[in-house]
Amino acid sequence: MTERVRVPIDLGERSYEVVVGERLLEHSADILSPIVAGRRVFVVTDEVVRARHLHRLAPVLGEVASGYETVLIPLGERTKSFAQLEVLLNRLLDLGMDRRSVLLALGGGVVGDVAGFAAALFMRGVDFVQVPTTLMSQVDSAVGGKNAINTRHGKNLIGTFHQPRAVLNDVTVLHSLPRRELVAGYGEIVKYGLIRGERVFSWLEQHGPAALALDEQAPQQALIEAVRMGCETKGDIVAADERDQGRRAIINLGHTFAHAIETEVGYGALLHGEAVAAGLAAAAALSAKLGYCETALVERLRRHLGAVGLPERIAALATQRNWDPAALMAHMAHDKKTVGGRVAFVLLRGVGEPFVDNTVPEAAVLTVLAEECSRHNADTRR
Amino acid sequence: MTERVRVPIDLGERSYEVVVGERLLEHSADILSPIVAGRRVFVVTDEVVRARHLHRLAPVLGEVASGYETVLIPLGERTKSFAQLEVLLNRLLDLGMDRRSVLLALGGGVVGDVAGFAAALFMRGVDFVQVPTTLMSQVDSAVGGKNAINTRHGKNLIGTFHQPRAVLNDVTVLHSLPRRELVAGYGEIVKYGLIRGERVFSWLEQHGPAALALDEQAPQQALIEAVRMGCETKGDIVAADERDQGRRAIINLGHTFAHAIETEVGYGALLHGEAVAAGLAAAAALSAKLGYCETALVERLRRHLGAVGLPERIAALATQRNWDPAALMAHMAHDKKTVGGRVAFVLLRGVGEPFVDNTVPEAAVLTVLAEECSRHNADTRR
Repeated sequence: MTERVRVPIDLGERSYEVVVGERLLEHSADILSPIVAGRRVFVVTDEVVRARHLHRLAPVLGEVASGYETVLIPLGERTKSFAQLEVLLNRLLDLGMDRRSVLLALGGGVVGDVAGFAAALFMRGVDFVQVPTTLMSQVDSAVGGKNAINTRHGKNLIGTFHQPRAVLNDVTVLHSLPRRELVAGYGEIVKYGLIRGERVFSWLEQHGPAALALDEQAPQQALIEAVRMGCETKGDIVAADERDQGRRAIINLGHTFAHAIETEVGYGALLHGEAVAAGLAAAAALSAKLGYCETALVERLRRHLGAVGLPERIAALATQRNWDPAALMAHMAHDKKTVGGRVAFVLLRGVGEPFVDNTVPEAAVLTVLAEECSRHNADTRR
Repeated sequence: MTERVRVPIDLGERSYEVVVGERLLEHSADILSPIVAGRRVFVVTDEVVRARHLHRLAPVLGEVASGYETVLIPLGERTKSFAQLEVLLNRLLDLGMDRRSVLLALGGGVVGDVAGFAAALFMRGVDFVQVPTTLMSQVDSAVGGKNAINTRHGKNLIGTFHQPRAVLNDVTVLHSLPRRELVAGYGEIVKYGLIRGERVFSWLEQHGPAALALDEQAPQQALIEAVRMGCETKGDIVAADERDQGRRAIINLGHTFAHAIETEVGYGALLHGEAVAAGLAAAAALSAKLGYCETALVERLRRHLGAVGLPERIAALATQRNWDPAALMAHMAHDKKTVGGRVAFVLLRGVGEPFVDNTVPEAAVLTVLAEECSRHNADTRR
């Protein structure tokens, strides 16, 4: 058996485990059997992931389930729509799926979102297994039970909470990711390091580059540990606030800025993790500007982002030459997390000390945005 | 203050009360204020219900909420579709609804289903209040948190569980119901009497006709008590099995037959409660045929159904002259509750002794169906 670690997600009767390891897909019989034995499995995936990875999982399903079907959904964010959700649910009904069947999401964030939503709604909820195939989804979206689709009013406005029965994080699948996508996923790991504390963040500074090296000949201990830490941190926060009514908001560290950045360039022009990295730097800079933390923390964060190839500030994002601070500011005011016109920021008093502040003066945000967007700062960076 | 009774629904942190009384709509400030104070309310209703009842609730919302909007959905079962759900959710987004807003369903089962589904999905769940305006929805669909839409594969196949924060059962609204619809709703009350036990069923035999008399000059104690009993019985069952994984199945007493009847005639040709009444008689007859209960129970049930103007057997359903037992049998095999080809029936060992049996021989079902469908039996009834 290859190396694997287990992260318990403690949600009472909805508790489950995230298993992280190498070559998990072909060695998942013991994990899947208690969930799928004697039942039909419906694998929701896209054509790229099917071609790359399904052949490793299929023999296990053939062995432990009473049969399985594969349902393809279209590639990309546009699949997160009402129309595609309806197509998927009707397809599952066509195939004779019933309330005892198990839905398995094999893919990245889009597949997990659409399949998780379908699992939540099919006959009011069927068992669901997440097999995320991107670093981003392994450490973030596959853990915690959130799913959603987009509307013309914005992203992820319509969805549910529906916890999986298990999450299989096979780091071997990450070898086939484009380098840029792998690095972007690491942006969420940096976020969890900042939330978690000094020991973890120092570990990332020391081992992050090695985790992303993906040497196929060497064991993947650093990568497994980085993924484990992300899942554990998210799991602890989710366990404390499953339905996002308070404490779970700290998961949005960097995301108020990131969503504004993504809205400005149009979704798809940047990878989410790249916007998150620039957003983390902006959130740290805002924290320092308001006197909550030392400037040294901001510099240290930028250094680590740069060391792994992530953008150290908004201006370093390649998509747009001239960022407009006022436009970003306007997007924040329309964020769905905004209640009663007050924009909520997750700020840092230090590494491991995130907190939510919805009393940040607009002027301070604009000043920080102007600095983060300035090409002068970007060009003169270390 | 007019007479009102409160039925607690015990679901841990999702607990709520069903309030039953006269003229509740105009006297609901104390019930609604803890839920809607300082928040915007979005009333989902249809044009008929709005014209009849909204003027009584509107002053209360104006007083206790920070504002309210009315959103109309089309009349009838066809509204329970993906397309209409999407239209409703986009309309709510257009109107600026946010995660702190409250959605209030004012109407019958269709309104409650679509509004409840929208409340479950809007930003992954907003607070929701049920104000059901039919007897059927007051005693059944508004309690327990189930919602759903239909697909081309059948009714209620896609939905969620999303408990309301409160249910307001104003019996005064029932005065405006067509007589046939009021009586049909009583079919579910008979079901709850059979589930509950001898004391309650005897009470219904004695007071059911008075409850349905709707004398506007007299207090509505009998009707309030009948509604209260239905809500309490359903609430107890839901509390024991919120997500329908076992015991909640007894709520389906009569419904395996009822769904087959409705499928055969096409939904809309009969009122659901009429099919339920005929289904209850068939379930009792099947129980007697299998030796689980006395024939006297079947006769007693038919007598009570007849006394309130409900069909005493399938043949008494007015829509179709010649019922085909084999066709009904075939519909049952496709019921969504069917798992692995075994049709589950809720049977009776006596009043108050329902149980689920998925080992009923097909021949016994066919024999009972033949008897229940026979016009000879119907024409020679007492």
